[in-house]
Amino acid sequence: MITLSSDFGWPYPAAMRGVIAAQSDARLIDVTHDFPRGDVRTAAFWMRELLPWFPPAVHLVVVDPGVGTDRAVLVMEADGHVLVGPDNGVLRPAARALAAEVDTYVREPVDARSATFHGRDVFAPLAAAVHEHDGSLADLPMLDPGTPAVDLRLPRPTIDGDVAAGEVLVVDGFGNAITNVPGTFIAGYNRARVAGRTVPIARTYAAVEPGAPLVTIGSHENVELAVNDGRGAAAFGVAPGDAIRVERLG
Amino acid sequence: MITLSSDFGWPYPAAMRGVIAAQSDARLIDVTHDFPRGDVRTAAFWMRELLPWFPPAVHLVVVDPGVGTDRAVLVMEADGHVLVGPDNGVLRPAARALAAEVDTYVREPVDARSATFHGRDVFAPLAAAVHEHDGSLADLPMLDPGTPAVDLRLPRPTIDGDVAAGEVLVVDGFGNAITNVPGTFIAGYNRARVAGRTVPIARTYAAVEPGAPLVTIGSHENVELAVNDGRGAAAFGVAPGDAIRVERLG
Amino acid sequence: MITLSSDFGWPYPAAMRGVIAAQSDARLIDVTHDFPRGDVRTAAFWMRELLPWFPPAVHLVVVDPGVGTDRAVLVMEADGHVLVGPDNGVLRPAARALAAEVDTYVREPVDARSATFHGRDVFAPLAAAVHEHDGSLADLPMLDPGTPAVDLRLPRPTIDGDVAAGEVLVVDGFGNAITNVPGTFIAGYNRARVAGRTVPIARTYAAVEPGAPLVTIGSHENVELAVNDGRGAAAFGVAPGDAIRVERLG
Repeated sequence: MITLSSDFGWPYPAAMRGVIAAQSDARLIDVTHDFPRGDVRTAAFWMRELLPWFPPAVHLVVVDPGVGTDRAVLVMEADGHVLVGPDNGVLRPAARALAAEVDTYVREPVDARSATFHGRDVFAPLAAAVHEHDGSLADLPMLDPGTPAVDLRLPRPTIDGDVAAGEVLVVDGFGNAITNVPGTFIAGYNRARVAGRTVPIARTYAAVEPGAPLVTIGSHENVELAVNDGRGAAAFGVAPGDAIRVERLG
Repeated sequence: MITLSSDFGWPYPAAMRGVIAAQSDARLIDVTHDFPRGDVRTAAFWMRELLPWFPPAVHLVVVDPGVGTDRAVLVMEADGHVLVGPDNGVLRPAARALAAEVDTYVREPVDARSATFHGRDVFAPLAAAVHEHDGSLADLPMLDPGTPAVDLRLPRPTIDGDVAAGEVLVVDGFGNAITNVPGTFIAGYNRARVAGRTVPIARTYAAVEPGAPLVTIGSHENVELAVNDGRGAAAFGVAPGDAIRVERLG
Repeated sequence: MITLSSDFGWPYPAAMRGVIAAQSDARLIDVTHDFPRGDVRTAAFWMRELLPWFPPAVHLVVVDPGVGTDRAVLVMEADGHVLVGPDNGVLRPAARALAAEVDTYVREPVDARSATFHGRDVFAPLAAAVHEHDGSLADLPMLDPGTPAVDLRLPRPTIDGDVAAGEVLVVDGFGNAITNVPGTFIAGYNRARVAGRTVPIARTYAAVEPGAPLVTIGSHENVELAVNDGRGAAAFGVAPGDAIRVERLG
C-alpha cells in the first residue's frame, strides 16, 4: 500500500498516481491533496494525526515549497511504515508518532527531469522503488543512512495551574480551531475562558445550541474551539499560529 | 467493496480509510466527501440516487451532526447491500431504493475513543467488521435487530392537472436545481411555467442557447431547472427546500 | 486499470464508479473531476500532459458540454492505451501524445437512459466493456472504425529570433500560467521580457524571493509565468487564451 498526500489540489496528483502505477501494483490510497499550498507545518500536523491509523505502508508526502533547490530527499522508516518526502520537516512529527526509533535515509539532490515537479519526477518513483524493494532500505543504491537537516517540532504549551498558554495549530474544514493544549487539561471541567470569552466545555458539538460556541476535546485529543453547526475559528477570532490562552474554570 | 461517503471534506476521510485498511483488504471506493456539512437531507437524496448504481457492497455514510449524542448507529441490509451510518435518516431513502425489504440492525450508543469523530472511531470499524463478517449480520455481537428512530422521507409533490406543486430537493455542482417533480409529468410537453418564467422543456442543455434557461428531465428522472452553460438555481432564484410550482404548457 | 476524468466535481463521478464496478473488477484511478465545467480545451491539455505517465489503461474522459446532442462517442487506441470520450476534441491531443498511430472507433449517438448524464449511461458502461473485451476493438458490435469529427489541436507559437508569440494555455491551481512556448526557447537565458515586465528566468520557484515573479520551464516543458509562493497569472495579468509575447534577453 502506498498513501499519497500533497498540496497539489488538481490535477498534478494524477501524474504521481500514473508514475507509481507504471512501476508497482501497490494499492494507492489518497490521504489528501488539499493541504494549504506550501504550508509544511499544517501538513506535518495532519500527517502526525492521520498516518498512525493506517496499517504499515509507504507514505508519500509532497508539500515542498523548496522543490528543485538543494534540499535533500528523506526516507524514514518507523515501525514498518516508510515515509518518503522532502527534508523540510513535513515527515518528522508523523515519524515520531509512529515509532520511538526512526531510521532515516537521505537521498542527495538529483537532477530530475523537471526542477518544479519532484512529486512526479523524484518522490513518486522513489516511493514505488521503496515499495517494490525487498529487504533493508540500506541496500537501495540511491539511499544513505543520514539525519534530517530540518527538525520540525510542533510547539508545546506551557501550563501553569489553571491556565494553559498554547497555540492554534490548524483550523480544520469545519472551522474548528485545533490547539496544542492537551485535552486532559480540561477533562472534568465545565467551563473555560478562551480568547476573552467564557464558554462551556462539552463532549459533543450538539451539547450546545446551534450557533453557540464551545470548547471540546477533539478527536486529536487536543483542546478545540468550536461552534455547534458553525465555525469556531471565526467565532473565537483565531487563526493558525495565534497564541491562545485557555483558563479552566471548574 | 466498501464505499465511503461523508461531509468531511479533507483530511478526515483519510482516517476512515486507514482504519478500514487496517482491518480489511476490502476495495475502497469514495462516493463523495463533499456533502454540505451536516445536511442530512441532501446526503440522503444523493445516497438514494447513487448507491443503486453500485454492485452489492458495504456503504459507509457519515453525515452526523449529532455525533457523540445518544443517537444510535444503524446497519441496514437491502438486497445484498449493507448500509452503515447514524440513525438520523441519512440511510433510509437509499435503503428503500435498493430493496422493498430492508433488515435493520441497531447498535446502541457506545463510548468511543472520541465523542466528535465517530466516523473514525465507530462507523469505519463497524463497516470493516460487517465487511469481514461471514453469515447473518444478526450473529454480530454488537448488533441487534431493530427499527430506525428517524424515518426521513423526501417530500413528494402534489399534482393537480397541469400544475405540480413540489420542492427543490438539492442544487448540484453545475447549479442545476433538482426538484421532486417526476420527469414523467413534463414528458411530451414543450414549455413550462416555473418560478414566474415560461421556459422551453428540452431533452439536453445544448438544445437552448448558452446562457438560456430550460427545464429538463435530469438523470435522476426528476424535473430539473437548468441553464445551458450556466447555473439554473441562480437564474430561477431558487434554493434547496424552496417550494416550486411547475405548470406544463403544451 | 480504468482512469476517470471529468468536470463533474461531486457527486456524479460516484455513479460512474458504481456502473464500472458493477461490470468489471478493473482497478479505478481518478485523474481528476475538477476540470473547469465544459472547458474541452483545458481538459484536452491536461489529458495530454497526464496520461503518458500511466501504464497502458482504459482512460474515461467526460467533459461533454454537448451531452445528449448528436455528437458521436469515440474510442481511440494508442500504443496500448484506450481513450473513451465524446467526439469534441477532448481526447485528441492525448492520443497524439501517446502514439503516432492512433486507431479510432466511433459509436453513433444512442438513446441512453438519460440525455443529460452520458458519463453514467454511455461512457462508463463503454469503458467497462472495452476493458473487459479481449481481442481487437473492431470486434465490439457497437464500435465502427471511423474518424473524429472534431480535430482539436492546441495552438503552436511563432518564434522569430529572440521573440516567441504564443498563448496562455491554462492556469494551474497554484496560479502558474502555462504557455505554449517551448521551454527550450529560454533554456540558457537569464532574463525574459513578458507582458511588459522584465523578470528573471529561474530553474525553481524558490530561486527568487517570496512574492517575486519569474519565468521558468514547467514540468510540462513549456514556458511558465510564476510567482514564488504566489500566483503568476494574477501577477502577470494573464488568463487562459490570452496571447503572450516572450522575449529572451540573454
